[in-house]
Amino acid sequence: VAVKEEREGCKSLYGVQAERQEQAERSVLISCHSRTNEKNFLKYLSRHGDINKYFFYESYGMYAVVEFANRESLASLLEEAAIPSTSHESMVPFKSRLLTLRNLGSADVPNQQSGQQCQPQTTIPINELIQRLAREETIEQQITSLTDVYQLTEENSRLRFLVCSLLKDIAAAYFPECTINPFGSSVNGFGKLGCDLDMFLDVDDISGRNAKMPKSGLWLEYQMKRASSERAVTQSLLSVIGDCVDQFGPGCVGVQKILNARCPLVRFAHQPSGFQCDLTANNRVAMKSTELLYLYGELDPRVRHLVFTVRCWARAHGITSSIPGAWITNFSLTVMVLFFLQRRSPPIIPTLDHLRDLADPRDKSVIEGNDCTFVSDFSKIQLLSNTETLEKLLCEFFEFYSTFAFNRMSISIRKGKEQNKPEVAPLHIQNPFETSLNVSKNVNATQLDRFVALCQESSWLLQQSDTNTPRGGNAEKATTPWGLATLLMPSQVAGIKGRKK
Amino acid sequence: VAVKEEREGCKSLYGVQAERQEQAERSVLISCHSRTNEKNFLKYLSRHGDINKYFFYESYGMYAVVEFANRESLASLLEEAAIPSTSHESMVPFKSRLLTLRNLGSADVPNQQSGQQCQPQTTIPINELIQRLAREETIEQQITSLTDVYQLTEENSRLRFLVCSLLKDIAAAYFPECTINPFGSSVNGFGKLGCDLDMFLDVDDISGRNAKMPKSGLWLEYQMKRASSERAVTQSLLSVIGDCVDQFGPGCVGVQKILNARCPLVRFAHQPSGFQCDLTANNRVAMKSTELLYLYGELDPRVRHLVFTVRCWARAHGITSSIPGAWITNFSLTVMVLFFLQRRSPPIIPTLDHLRDLADPRDKSVIEGNDCTFVSDFSKIQLLSNTETLEKLLCEFFEFYSTFAFNRMSISIRKGKEQNKPEVAPLHIQNPFETSLNVSKNVNATQLDRFVALCQESSWLLQQSDTNTPRGGNAEKATTPWGLATLLMPSQVAGIKGRKK
Ligand SMILES: Nc1nc2c(ncn2[C@@H]2O[C@H](COP(=O)(O)OP(=O)(O)OP(=O)(O)O)[C@@H](O)[C@H]2O)c(=O)[nH]1
Ligand SMILES: Nc1nc2c(ncn2[C@@H]2O[C@H](COP(=O)(O)OP(=O)(O)OP(=O)(O)O)[C@@H](O)[C@H]2O)c(=O)[nH]1
Ligand SMILES: [Mg+2]
Ligand SMILES: [Mg+2]
Repeated sequence: VAVKEEREGCKSLYGVQAERQEQAERSVLISCHSRTNEKNFLKYLSRHGDINKYFFYESYGMYAVVEFANRESLASLLEEAAIPSTSHESMVPFKSRLLTLRNLGSADVPNQQSGQQCQPQTTIPINELIQRLAREETIEQQITSLTDVYQLTEENSRLRFLVCSLLKDIAAAYFPECTINPFGSSVNGFGKLGCDLDMFLDVDDISGRNAKMPKSGLWLEYQMKRASSERAVTQSLLSVIGDCVDQFGPGCVGVQKILNARCPLVRFAHQPSGFQCDLTANNRVAMKSTELLYLYGELDPRVRHLVFTVRCWARAHGITSSIPGAWITNFSLTVMVLFFLQRRSPPIIPTLDHLRDLADPRDKSVIEGNDCTFVSDFSKIQLLSNTETLEKLLCEFFEFYSTFAFNRMSISIRKGKEQNKPEVAPLHIQNPFETSLNVSKNVNATQLDRFVALCQESSWLLQQSDTNTPRGGNAEKATTPWGLATLLMPSQVAGIKGRKK
Repeated sequence: VAVKEEREGCKSLYGVQAERQEQAERSVLISCHSRTNEKNFLKYLSRHGDINKYFFYESYGMYAVVEFANRESLASLLEEAAIPSTSHESMVPFKSRLLTLRNLGSADVPNQQSGQQCQPQTTIPINELIQRLAREETIEQQITSLTDVYQLTEENSRLRFLVCSLLKDIAAAYFPECTINPFGSSVNGFGKLGCDLDMFLDVDDISGRNAKMPKSGLWLEYQMKRASSERAVTQSLLSVIGDCVDQFGPGCVGVQKILNARCPLVRFAHQPSGFQCDLTANNRVAMKSTELLYLYGELDPRVRHLVFTVRCWARAHGITSSIPGAWITNFSLTVMVLFFLQRRSPPIIPTLDHLRDLADPRDKSVIEGNDCTFVSDFSKIQLLSNTETLEKLLCEFFEFYSTFAFNRMSISIRKGKEQNKPEVAPLHIQNPFETSLNVSKNVNATQLDRFVALCQESSWLLQQSDTNTPRGGNAEKATTPWGLATLLMPSQVAGIKGRKK
C-alpha cells in the first residue's frame, strides 16, 4: 500500500518538466567572486523583487543560481545590467541571462566564513565512494547509499533546466514558439551528478498542422524556405543555432556540429555549469523513451537503486565509457536492468505492452509511424507483490546475464520475454519504440564477452562470505572494502578472475 | 533665391531615413496572383486597420507592398497569417513579413483590367532610352529626361527600406537594439532603378560606451564572448546573420559570405524585390560618404543631372561595370563629377573643407581617427551664382578630363583643387574622409586611357553640328539619335574614333 501511495503522489514527467521550466525562466546565472558577501549580494538583488530560491556552486570559479518570484524582477535586473567596459578588448554584444557580479571599491566586507556554502555539482571520486560504502553495515544500505551519493540533486536539476532555458533564448530569437527540453539521464531519474545534458529543440508547434486555414476566400500565408526533407530542416536549424551558440553564446565552448549523424546534433561544453551538452531537434521518440524510463523508475524504488548500482559497477570496470565505441551504453544497460526486473517472478515491473494496454485515448502517441503509446496515469498500474531485497536482486542480475543466451535471444522490454534474435549482432536489445531497431547494435563480441565475464565474477564474488560480510567495522581506522565496495574495485574483480582460472 | 528656398525645404538624409524606416516597419510584402482583384484584396487587408499606401509591382511574379497606418494592424495581420500546409514538402518555420496571398475557390472575380497597374522597379533598356532622348528638343531636356527615367522612384525607395527592415528582423533577433540602414546609391540621390542595395548593420548602440556603470558598490554585467578585434566581431556577426539569411530567410538566395574583404560583407539576392544586396556592419565611414554625396546632390539640381548622365554614359561604354575589376567605379566617377563642379568658376559646389568649417559643434564626427565632420544644416551653405547650362557643363566635363594631368595630379574634393599625387597609381582620387587612401587604386592604366579617350571623343562629338542639333523631329516615325543620345551609342562613339585616326 505504501508503494501504491507513493506512486499516486508521483508527478508525471511532464508535470515535473513544466514546473522546472517555469522556474528556470525566472532565474539568472551569476558569476561571482568567491569572497562575495552573501548578505550584500541578496540585498543588492532583492531590490528587483522577491527571491524564491538561490544557491552557490563552484565550476571554474564561483556561481550563483537565483530564482526570482516574478518575471518582472528578472526584466528589471537585466534592464539595469551593464555592458562590460572594454578598453582593449572587443566583444559580441549578445545579452543573455548569464551575468557577472562586479564589486567596485573594497567597501564590501567578505563573509566571515570566507565565502558561501557551495552545492556540489559533481560526484565524489570512485575511491571515496568505495571507502564510504565500506563503512555501511549491509549490502542493502550500500546500494541505497550509492544512489544517494550519485543521483542528481535538486540544485543540479535546476541548473540543467536553467541551461536549457538559456539555450532556448538563443533558439527563440528565430522560433518564438520553440521549446528546449532536457531528456535522457538529466530527467529520467537515472542521471548521475556530472552526466551530460541531452536537450531537444522542438519547433513542432509551428511547423505542423494548421488550424487557421480558412474554408474559402482569401487568406495569407507566411513564405518559408523549402527544404528537401524534415531531416534537412533539422540540420538547417541545428546548423544555424550551433553557429549562434559558437559565436554569441557566452560560456559556450568547443562547439561541434555533428549534422550527419543518424540523429543530427550540436555538441558543446557550457563552462559556467560544467555540463557537456548535446542539442538535438525534433527528437520526440527519445523524449518518449525518457518518459518510459522515468515511469519505470518511479514505479518501485528498487528500479532506480539497481540501475544506479549496475551503471556505477559497469563504469568502474570500463564496460561503459564516456566516449562512443563498441561498448555497451548506459541506455542499453538500463534496458537490460528493466528487462531483468520484468523476468522476476512475480515481475517487479510490467511490460511495455501492458503499459500500452492501460493507456487512455489521450495517451495515444504515434511518432513517425511508431506506436509510442503507454499509460500516463501511474495510479492505473497494478504491481504484483514481489518482496525481493536489493542484495538478492543484484546477485540475481549478475547470475541472469551470466547465463543469458545472448547468441540466440533478443532482449525486449516491450514483451518482457526474450525473443528470437531477428539479426546477427552479438548483443540484441530491441528498441522499445522503434521495434525493428537494435539499441546495442554498436556492441561487438569482445565487449559482450567482457560484460558476461564480469557478471560471472561479480556473481561469484557476492556469494563468497569474505566478500558479502562487513569487515574491520571500526569507524576510526580505514575500513576494508566489502560487499558492493569490493565489486567496484577493478583490481579486486580482476584478481578473483586470475584465481578462478 | 529659388534654389536657396529649395535647399531650405530639403530634409537631411537622417530625416529622410528615419521617416522611410518607420514606414517600412509598418509594411508587409505580399506575393499575389497577377489576377488578384484589387478591391477584394484591399477589403481583406483593411480588416486589420487603415492602409496608408500600397502598390503593386512585378518581379518573378506579382507583389504588393502594403503600408498600414498603425503597427497594431501589422501584428493583427501576422497573427492571422497561416503556416503553409505542406503535404509532401518540408520547410523552415521562420515567420517574417513576407507573405503569400492565397485564394481558395474561384469565387474571386478577376480585375476587369486583368490585373493591377504595376510600378516599374527596373529601368528601360538603353536602346529605348536612346530612342526616347532622340525625341527631346534640347540637350538640356535630354539630360533631365535621362535623370527622370533612371532615378529611383518613390515606390522603389520604399521597397529598399522594406528589405532593410525585413533583414533587420533577422538581425534584431539577437541584437534587439540594432539598425540596418541603406547606404550608397540607394539613398545618396544618385541611384538608378535596379542598382544594388548596400546596407549596414549597426549594433554600436549596445557594444559601446556604457552610461550605466555605477561609481561604487556591487553591479551586474552581461557576460559576453570576447573577440580578438572589432573586425573579428564584425566577421562573427555577419557570419551568423549570413547563415540565418541563407537557411531561414524566405526569398533570399545565393548567399555568399565575403568576410575577408577589407570591408567584410554578406552578399545575396532578394528575389521578391529583385535587389542584389550587400550587407556590411559597423561601416560608419561609408554612411558619412553617403550623407556627403546626398548633400552635394541636394545643393544644386545640376549635380544630380550631371552625375546621372556621366554614370549612364560610362556604363554604356563599359567604363564602369557591374562586376569588380580594374575599372572605374560609380563612386569614383561621382567624386570626379563633384570635383569638376568645384573647379568651375565660380564653383557650383563648395569644397569639403568649407563644409567642415561651417559645421556646428554637434556635427562633429570622428570615426576611427578620421575627421568626418561637415555641416548638417543646409541653409548655412552659401552658393555662388554660377548659371552655366547642363549642356555646357557636360561638354566642359569631357573637356576637363580630356586634358587633366592624371600622371601628376590627384583629385581631392576636400580641397577642391588638384593635389600632387602622393603615390604612383594611374588614377588617384583622394578618399574624402580617409584622406590617405585612394578611392580608385584598383584602376589600371588601360582603363584610365579608355576613360580619357572617351572623354575626348565625346567632347569632340558634342561640338559637331550634326550631333548637337535635333534630327528628323517627326514624332510618328523613328527619330535619328542626336545629342546625348548619340553619346550613349557605343558604335557611334567608336565610329568617330575610327574616323579621327
Ligand atoms: N532509441 C534509442 N534511444 C537512445 C539510444 N541512445 C540513446 N538514446 C536516447 O537518448 C537519451 C540520451 O542518450 P545518452 O546521453 O547516450 O544516455 P543517457 O540515458 O542520457 O545516459 P548518460 O550516459 O548518463 O548520458 C537516452 O536516454 C535515450 O532516451 C539508442 O541507441 N536508441
Ligand atoms: N571610401 C570608400 N567608399 C567606397 C568605396 N567604394 C564604395 N564606397 C562606399 O560604399 C558605397 C556603396 O558602394 P557601391 O555599391 O560600390 O557604390 P554605389 O555608390 O552604391 O553605386 P552603385 O554602383 O550604383 O551601387 C558608396 O556609395 C560609397 O559610400 C571606396 O572605394 N572607398
Ligand atoms: Mg545523456
Ligand atoms: Mg551600391
